[in-house]
Amino acid sequence: MAQKPSIPKGTRDFSPQEVVQRNYIFDTIRTCFKTYGFQPIETPSFEKSETLMGKYGEEGDRLIFKILNSGDYLNPNKRAISEEEYAERNSKKLTKYISEKALRYDLTVPFARYVVQHQNEITFPFKRYQIQPVWRADRPQKGRFREFFQCDADVVGSDSLWQEVELVQLYDDVFDKLNLKGVTIKLNNRKILSGIAEVIGAEDKLIDFTVALDKLDKIGEEGVITEMKSKGISDNAIDKLQPLFKVSGNASEKLELLKTLLVSSEIGCKGISELEFITNSIENLSLKSANLEIDVTLARGLNYYTGAIFEIAPPEGVKMGSIGGGGRYDDLTGIFGLKNMSGVGISFGLDRIYLVLEELNLFPETVISNTKVLFINFGEKEAMYAMKAISKLRVAGISSELYPDDAKMGKQMNYANKRSIPFVILAGDKEMENQSFTLKDMNSGEQQTVTLEELQGKLLV
Amino acid sequence: MAQKPSIPKGTRDFSPQEVVQRNYIFDTIRTCFKTYGFQPIETPSFEKSETLMGKYGEEGDRLIFKILNSGDYLNPNKRAISEEEYAERNSKKLTKYISEKALRYDLTVPFARYVVQHQNEITFPFKRYQIQPVWRADRPQKGRFREFFQCDADVVGSDSLWQEVELVQLYDDVFDKLNLKGVTIKLNNRKILSGIAEVIGAEDKLIDFTVALDKLDKIGEEGVITEMKSKGISDNAIDKLQPLFKVSGNASEKLELLKTLLVSSEIGCKGISELEFITNSIENLSLKSANLEIDVTLARGLNYYTGAIFEIAPPEGVKMGSIGGGGRYDDLTGIFGLKNMSGVGISFGLDRIYLVLEELNLFPETVISNTKVLFINFGEKEAMYAMKAISKLRVAGISSELYPDDAKMGKQMNYANKRSIPFVILAGDKEMENQSFTLKDMNSGEQQTVTLEELQGKLLV
Repeated sequence: MAQKPSIPKGTRDFSPQEVVQRNYIFDTIRTCFKTYGFQPIETPSFEKSETLMGKYGEEGDRLIFKILNSGDYLNPNKRAISEEEYAERNSKKLTKYISEKALRYDLTVPFARYVVQHQNEITFPFKRYQIQPVWRADRPQKGRFREFFQCDADVVGSDSLWQEVELVQLYDDVFDKLNLKGVTIKLNNRKILSGIAEVIGAEDKLIDFTVALDKLDKIGEEGVITEMKSKGISDNAIDKLQPLFKVSGNASEKLELLKTLLVSSEIGCKGISELEFITNSIENLSLKSANLEIDVTLARGLNYYTGAIFEIAPPEGVKMGSIGGGGRYDDLTGIFGLKNMSGVGISFGLDRIYLVLEELNLFPETVISNTKVLFINFGEKEAMYAMKAISKLRVAGISSELYPDDAKMGKQMNYANKRSIPFVILAGDKEMENQSFTLKDMNSGEQQTVTLEELQGKLLV
Repeated sequence: MAQKPSIPKGTRDFSPQEVVQRNYIFDTIRTCFKTYGFQPIETPSFEKSETLMGKYGEEGDRLIFKILNSGDYLNPNKRAISEEEYAERNSKKLTKYISEKALRYDLTVPFARYVVQHQNEITFPFKRYQIQPVWRADRPQKGRFREFFQCDADVVGSDSLWQEVELVQLYDDVFDKLNLKGVTIKLNNRKILSGIAEVIGAEDKLIDFTVALDKLDKIGEEGVITEMKSKGISDNAIDKLQPLFKVSGNASEKLELLKTLLVSSEIGCKGISELEFITNSIENLSLKSANLEIDVTLARGLNYYTGAIFEIAPPEGVKMGSIGGGGRYDDLTGIFGLKNMSGVGISFGLDRIYLVLEELNLFPETVISNTKVLFINFGEKEAMYAMKAISKLRVAGISSELYPDDAKMGKQMNYANKRSIPFVILAGDKEMENQSFTLKDMNSGEQQTVTLEELQGKLLV
C-alpha cells in the first residue's frame, strides 16, 4: 500500500494530549452527575433499525448510519428482496432488506428504549446519566463531526419542578468546576410559547412563530416581523406581540410583563408559574458563577419539549453557539408503548466546551498526558538498577519510564525533551555505588544527587 | 408499537451497577498504564474499508461489520455498480460498491494506521494505550459478544527486551490492584517454536505443529502425537519432541532442557536467551502476586508474533480461558508501508476479568453506583430547606438527592430501600426551627438529630 492511510471524513483521531483534555471534561461532568444522584447506564452502539427509524423525522432517518447485514445478504433464501423489487434498483427499498441495524443517532431514543425494556428492574424516579458516542451522516464542517460524544443527564418518572431547579444547579456546578465562569443559563417554557400563540390567535402557526422569534438576536425585530408576515401571521397578531420584543430587565420584571400579556391564556399562566418557581428557587439557593436568564425567544426542539427549555450560552466575548441544552418532555417513552412517563434532561456539548476551554486557556496545567520522570539507560546493569527504583516510584503512583535502549545520551535526552518529560534520572556506576540518583530538572537544568526516598518526595510534589 | 423493544443479538445494555463495576476495572487498568508511562489515544469507531479489509484473513473480513453508504447509494451517477454486475445479485460484489466504511474489528490495526498516519508527530519509542469498543459479527455465545471493549498497551519503535520485562510487571500490577492474586503469566517465544520445528525438521509444518502442541493441556500427550501424525509430521520428528512433553520444573530447569534440545538451532537459542533475560530480570525485580511460568506450548496468534508471547491464566480453581495476552511483533506497520517498526503489546480481557472478579466476589464494597443520602420531601418549604443542605453536601462531594415529590412517606422510604441508599434525612418543622436534621441509618434503623456540620462529617466517612 503506497498511499498514506487516512480516516473517514468527519471522524477524528485523538492524540494523547487531546484524550487527556477530553477526559478532564468528561470526568468533571461525571463527578457532578454522581453527586447529584444520577446513575450511569450504557447502551449498545447499534440498535435494531426499527428502534431508531422514524424517531427523528425524515431528515433524521437519512442521517442514521445503517449497518449492512452480514453474510450473503442478497441470498433469496433469506428474508430477502423479491426479484422484481431488486430489479428496480431503488436504494431506499433495498435498504430495508439488507440492513436491520443502525448506529445510534443520539442517547435519548436508546434511553427511552432502555427504560421501557427494563421498566421492571428500574426504581422510579430514575435519574440516569449516559456519556457515549453517537453517529450522524451529516455533512462534516467546522465543529460538526460524524462521530461525537453526548453527555446526558435525565430524570424520568416525576414531574416535580425541583428537578428543573436541580438541573440549573448542575449546569452551574459543572461549568464552575471547569473554571468557565459567567456562562448564561437561558430558561424558557414551552407553555409560554403556546400561551403567546394562543393570545395572538396563531395557535396553528406555533412552529413558524417560534422559529421566527428564535431569530430575534440575529435578524432583529424588523426581520422577525417580516418573517412572521411571510408565514401568514396577521398584522393584528404581530401588534399584540410588540411587548415581547421589549421584554427586558431582571427575572421578576420579565415575569410581570408576561403575566400581563398572557393573562387570558391558561396554559401561558401555567408556564409563567413554572418559570417563577424555578427562578425563585434558584434565587433562594444562589448559583456559583452562572447567570440564569429568562429568554422567551428560546424555542429549541419545540416539537419535543413540553415544559422547561434550557440552553447554555458561553461567557460573553466567546464566539460560539450553545454549549448545552435540554428541557422537559412529557412523553419520552410513548414511542415504545409506555405512556405517562414524564422526564426532564440536559445535555453538555463536549466538543464546543473543549474549544471554549482551549480558547480561554482554561485547561489546568496538570491536565497533561505525561510521564513524570525518565531514567536514562546506560546499559544492562544500570537499567536493572533503574528498574528497581522505577518499580518503587510506580507503587507511589509516579508515572516513570526507563528509556528502553542504551542509546546515545543525546538521543535519550531528546526523547525526554520532545515528550516534555519534566525530570530525568542519570544513574551510573557512581550512583549505584552510593545507592543514589542524579536528578535533572529539565526546565531549570539544575542537577542534584538524591536518595530514592528524596527522589520520591520531590516527584510527588 | 405493541412489542416490547429489544436490542440486537450479541449486544448488551449495562445497568448502573454494571457500569460502575466495569469502570472500576477500566480505571484500575488505566491508572497502571499511566504510571508505566503509556499515553492514551483514541481512534474513530469506523475506518475506511480498505484500512481493515484483508488484515484479518478471510474469516476476519467476514466478521467485520460494514456500514452502508448514505443517500442514494445505488444511483448510477455515483461511483456505482454497473447494470450487469448489479443484475448478478452477488452480495460480495455489491458490498464493494455500497459500503466504504466498517466498524473496527480490533485496536491493533487502527493503531498501526494511526502510527503511520501520524508518524511525524510521534516521538518514538511510542508507548500508547487504548481502551475502546470493537465489533465482530461473530455468532454470539456465552461470554462472546458482538460489541466488546479491548484494553491494549503497546510500545512501538524499540526492540529492547526491557519492554517485555515491564509488560510482565504491568500484568502483575493490574491484577494485584484488582486483588486478583495468583494469576499465572505464561511466557513463550515464537523463536523457540521456530527452533523446535527446525530441530525436528518440520519447519514447513510450523503452524500445524504448534496448533497441535497448544492442545497438550486438553488432549494430552497421546492426542497431540496423533494429531501431529495426521498432519504428516514424521515419527522421527515426534520422537525428538518427546522431551518437550516432559518440560517441567522451575524456569531455569526448563531453560536448561530447552538449551539441550535446541543447541543446534540458532533461532531457537536466540529465543531461549530472550526468555532467559525476561525471567532473570523478573526474578531480580520480583512480582507482587502473579506467577511467571515458561510454557513452550503457548502459541497464540502465531502468524503475528515474532518474539515473546504472553498469556494470562486466572487463579487456579477458576474455570475460565485466558484473561489477557499479547506478544512481540516485528512488523506492525508494514501493512501500511512503514517498515521496521518493531512493537510489543498486551491486552486485557475486560469481560472475562469481570466474570472472574464477580465469581470470586472481589469487587470492593465501595464500587457501587449510589446516592449516599436521600432527603425526604415533606412539601415546598421543607424541600427548600433540604435543597440548601443538599447543595452544601454536594460541594463536599457527597452524592445527595431530594425525593422530587412530596409523596407519601412510605413511597419515599421504599425508594430509598430499593435503591439501597444507606442514609435518609427527615427534616420537618421541628428540625427547621432548630436548624437540624434527623438522620436515619437505613441498615441499623437508628435515628439521631444532627447539625449540618455533623451530618457532613458522618456522611463523609
